[in-house]
Amino acid sequence: MEYAFSEKIAGMKPSAIREIFKSLADPSIISFAAGNPSPLSFPREAIAAISEEILKEQAVTALQYSVTEGYGPLREDVKRRIGEKFGIDAAGDETIITAGGQQGIELACKVLCNEGDAVICEEPTFIGALNAFRSNGARPIGVPLRGDGIDTEALDRALTEHPEAKMIYLIPTFHNPAGITSTLENRLRVLEIARRHGVPIFEDNPYGELRFSGEDTDTLKKLDGDRGGVIYCSTFSKILSAGMRVGYVTAPAPVISKMVIAKQVEDVHTNIFFQILTHRFIDEYDLDAHIAGIRALYRAKCGLMLDRLEKDLAPDVDFTRPDGGLFIWCTLPDRIDQEYFVKEALRRGVAVVPGGTFCCEVGAKSQSFRLNYSTPSDEDIVRGVGILGAITKE
Amino acid sequence: MEYAFSEKIAGMKPSAIREIFKSLADPSIISFAAGNPSPLSFPREAIAAISEEILKEQAVTALQYSVTEGYGPLREDVKRRIGEKFGIDAAGDETIITAGGQQGIELACKVLCNEGDAVICEEPTFIGALNAFRSNGARPIGVPLRGDGIDTEALDRALTEHPEAKMIYLIPTFHNPAGITSTLENRLRVLEIARRHGVPIFEDNPYGELRFSGEDTDTLKKLDGDRGGVIYCSTFSKILSAGMRVGYVTAPAPVISKMVIAKQVEDVHTNIFFQILTHRFIDEYDLDAHIAGIRALYRAKCGLMLDRLEKDLAPDVDFTRPDGGLFIWCTLPDRIDQEYFVKEALRRGVAVVPGGTFCCEVGAKSQSFRLNYSTPSDEDIVRGVGILGAITKE
Repeated sequence: MEYAFSEKIAGMKPSAIREIFKSLADPSIISFAAGNPSPLSFPREAIAAISEEILKEQAVTALQYSVTEGYGPLREDVKRRIGEKFGIDAAGDETIITAGGQQGIELACKVLCNEGDAVICEEPTFIGALNAFRSNGARPIGVPLRGDGIDTEALDRALTEHPEAKMIYLIPTFHNPAGITSTLENRLRVLEIARRHGVPIFEDNPYGELRFSGEDTDTLKKLDGDRGGVIYCSTFSKILSAGMRVGYVTAPAPVISKMVIAKQVEDVHTNIFFQILTHRFIDEYDLDAHIAGIRALYRAKCGLMLDRLEKDLAPDVDFTRPDGGLFIWCTLPDRIDQEYFVKEALRRGVAVVPGGTFCCEVGAKSQSFRLNYSTPSDEDIVRGVGILGAITKE
Repeated sequence: MEYAFSEKIAGMKPSAIREIFKSLADPSIISFAAGNPSPLSFPREAIAAISEEILKEQAVTALQYSVTEGYGPLREDVKRRIGEKFGIDAAGDETIITAGGQQGIELACKVLCNEGDAVICEEPTFIGALNAFRSNGARPIGVPLRGDGIDTEALDRALTEHPEAKMIYLIPTFHNPAGITSTLENRLRVLEIARRHGVPIFEDNPYGELRFSGEDTDTLKKLDGDRGGVIYCSTFSKILSAGMRVGYVTAPAPVISKMVIAKQVEDVHTNIFFQILTHRFIDEYDLDAHIAGIRALYRAKCGLMLDRLEKDLAPDVDFTRPDGGLFIWCTLPDRIDQEYFVKEALRRGVAVVPGGTFCCEVGAKSQSFRLNYSTPSDEDIVRGVGILGAITKE
């Protein structure tokens, strides 16, 4: 039988990154393309010990159906932790545990946007968010990202031109893919603009705890205080395990209550075993010490990659210098054809993600590409950047 | 700030069942309301042993990001198992691993339906499916369920009257909530009608392996052969663990490929640890023997409940006699006000789910209610049915 697909899904392509991820089964390829945390960031021994405890002490709870909003003790942990780490006072807010941060983005769009509505976002931005918007029939509208954060004049203009915008999606800290952290001034200005237009901000902060240099900037959620204008999302994917799919959203109660309804029909609840495991890790182990280890690892890896980029790339290639997170964003000069560059790099055994992937318009041209430093070995970083550098100098 | 919600979500209420489930924290209530598998159906020792193995032997794979379509060896297991158990030849089909059967339903609706499209379903039907359709802006259209399956004349009429119907959602085996298994004749007729109207069938079969009396009837998927008209969905929730959220859909490749795209933005992938665990259980343990134990348990529990219903209910109360699954469907005579009955039962300490919950029209009147026998203890079944019976005789 011939199938006809819904308009919102029919035009969508699988995420280029997931596709690249699949092709990376080839071990001879040096991959700077993935967005994976380092396997060294998984506390394997602790996870094994906690798993054993759970299956001895509370197996039935861990294997039975559970409530959609998430495991109570973990929701309390989240509230406490975002208070301690980011000064977020979630007193008037609620928290929902999601299947990774990805589900948080998708649910927020689903509860706020009708088909044809718009979501304003930085350009470039996270491909998983762009596709989440598209899959709900919402249209992503890109606003340029500068060195200090989103272009606030352009944001103001976009909100005026698009009264159908229902959400502003931002990754202000250690941006994916751009590696940029927006300044305090920029954040205050963004909040003022969003408030004036009456449009809520979705603050995606999956990498917030992975700072390895510089000082923390206040989150939008903290700066917004009790105004309820910011939906805050994060995840345990980068600090405990990505494969377990445990993330969360903290937002005003009416938003969370609608997200609970939308999540109920997507998966009933996030797998409860790993919700309990995450709670027990926070409760019984030293999450801060564990994260300090990940930071040190990424500091070293990012430092090495920046060092080699400095040495090996042609001087007219531009790149960002992140203070945390997983990504560096490189921009080629006009003399180099980016499409050729990406293909040639892969031919010589180095995978990077072309910048167009992160644009609102499908198939957009870009002179940029994204590099990841958390996954490759030190040897691969040195060798891989060497190969990229050689292409930029030909 | 004041939030405005999307039209498709704004009108939705949390599932009454999930809400009842939450209220059941009160241990003095005898609950016939849940849809949970018996905790005795979780192979705890095996799950503990396999968890230990996984975290020793393949921890990085089990904790890292994975591919959206699911763990390869588990997809192969599914293909083999539905072939062996249900004679389904999935040679031309693909399989996606989902976060429980719930996600399979939701994704199918998302990829097939635009807002305003219709999904034809049995009335009554699974509340999680109804809400999945609503959350995508699709309208469920109910067709009465009879003792031998969906009313085929009414189905034919509904498909003629609703050219905007994009899917027929059916639970032909051990129906939830009605406990009915449709006959072979009914199934053949349904397939003929669906084919004539060119509308695909979504066959939801979460309880298929839980037969405890009678002989298997061929699945719609098997009867459809290689015509590609049936999207087949099932889950490991009722035979291994509900809390782990591992289900699957097998369907023609173009459908699965669109579902992969839609799933990617919902949760990237189903938690990989429990996908590996399920594969290892199938590979290293005797799943059939384990299921035989669950069947024996439910045979006894269902038998006990039917026995007590026969003895305790007023003779003008009607109820179904399931050959498998988790549910019995009772229908009160007109002399009893159903709303009063359900409230009075709860006041006396017995929770049941009112039939209107399972209707396409929100707030629909019904003389029926659903009973679950898999979760309550034998003592509670005897005492609880006694209480229900007393009300029917007053």
